[in-house]
Amino acid sequence: MAIAVLGTGMVGQAIAGRLHGLGHEVVVGTRDVDATMSRPPFDEGGSPTFAAWAADHPGVQVASFADAAATSDLVVNATSGAVTLDALAEAGAANLAGKVLLDISNPLDFSRGFPPTLFVKDSDSLGEQVQAAFPNALVVKSLNTMTAALMVEPRRVGGGEHSVFVSGNDLQAKARVVGLLHEFGHTDVIDLGDITTSRGPEMFLPLWLRTMQALGTGMFNIKVVRP
Amino acid sequence: MAIAVLGTGMVGQAIAGRLHGLGHEVVVGTRDVDATMSRPPFDEGGSPTFAAWAADHPGVQVASFADAAATSDLVVNATSGAVTLDALAEAGAANLAGKVLLDISNPLDFSRGFPPTLFVKDSDSLGEQVQAAFPNALVVKSLNTMTAALMVEPRRVGGGEHSVFVSGNDLQAKARVVGLLHEFGHTDVIDLGDITTSRGPEMFLPLWLRTMQALGTGMFNIKVVRP
Repeated sequence: MAIAVLGTGMVGQAIAGRLHGLGHEVVVGTRDVDATMSRPPFDEGGSPTFAAWAADHPGVQVASFADAAATSDLVVNATSGAVTLDALAEAGAANLAGKVLLDISNPLDFSRGFPPTLFVKDSDSLGEQVQAAFPNALVVKSLNTMTAALMVEPRRVGGGEHSVFVSGNDLQAKARVVGLLHEFGHTDVIDLGDITTSRGPEMFLPLWLRTMQALGTGMFNIKVVRP
Repeated sequence: MAIAVLGTGMVGQAIAGRLHGLGHEVVVGTRDVDATMSRPPFDEGGSPTFAAWAADHPGVQVASFADAAATSDLVVNATSGAVTLDALAEAGAANLAGKVLLDISNPLDFSRGFPPTLFVKDSDSLGEQVQAAFPNALVVKSLNTMTAALMVEPRRVGGGEHSVFVSGNDLQAKARVVGLLHEFGHTDVIDLGDITTSRGPEMFLPLWLRTMQALGTGMFNIKVVRP
């Protein structure tokens, strides 16, 4: 399956690398390919940049948001929430039409410091905003409730015995996302319902952030324990 | 330990009944004792009223909010979020001063139907509002992330292998609440930090509500799975 991963940050790298490792044809979408690829291998904080990651992953293609979306069957939104709608607009409504759009973004607002607040919540969600802005895309919200490493390798904690949620209006699109989740190693997928249920997983972030601070690690996930 | 449980609904009944069963001296606080106790045994919906519950629990006292708080060492706020600040005002700041105030309430707003939204969130929380309104009470937020039956008998699901959070400014007050949680059967208590961390567990409610709808039961809780 040809998959576009929009976003070059930690989430995009994790998703793209894992999908490529699973044998999918992967293209990473970015705003400006030349700018992205000409960055030095380390940023000011000493972390490897996407350019360094891409050099280590020659099998993964890199393209503009629009070219990545146009040439793929399924699109993953791995951009940060603050730029999600702009990035998807650059990808182009026509290039998203009729395609599964797996939305991993969280509406985090860092303007008041850490932990961030949410710039949309409760009576709306970013998942719904994406679906409203691109009515012909088949938006499925998932994976936004855990750290990137666990999104793609859930077995790294607790033998993978924890839960992941999906929200979306199209049952076949959700089924395709659930298939990818299973490929990643997820075993407990909870279908919350239509895209309005994105409000739940997005509003989980404030608890995730405080739990991360309390535990001193983001390497955890929640299991919905039930009879 | 003499404990006041403010609120006569499902949460109040569950907490009061369990604490009494554990051997604590329990008084339930209500706005108007005569009105509460003179209700018929079943409400319009056919559910047993607090009057019926109290008749089955003769060892549990019933008193006004103020009398209940005044005669107790520890106070549990089990009122619904919409009336929490009013109920605590009736209990009286002097009667709460220097006491552990275990706050279980959630800021649920049912005015837009089901699932409810939150009337305070993200940049503030009901737990913080309670602490601000009663600065001499030792407020500890806990137990608000699960259904009443599991608050007091966590072993009813998954052998009790799930998590509960505490938030509060006073370490000794949190330790006393953790002691009660252990008495109930909780084994995995996560201390999130000061009372501002109440924002996390309170904002979990939208995910709890949608998970409840998806599973068709409230008899579940989350386990924070970590290394």
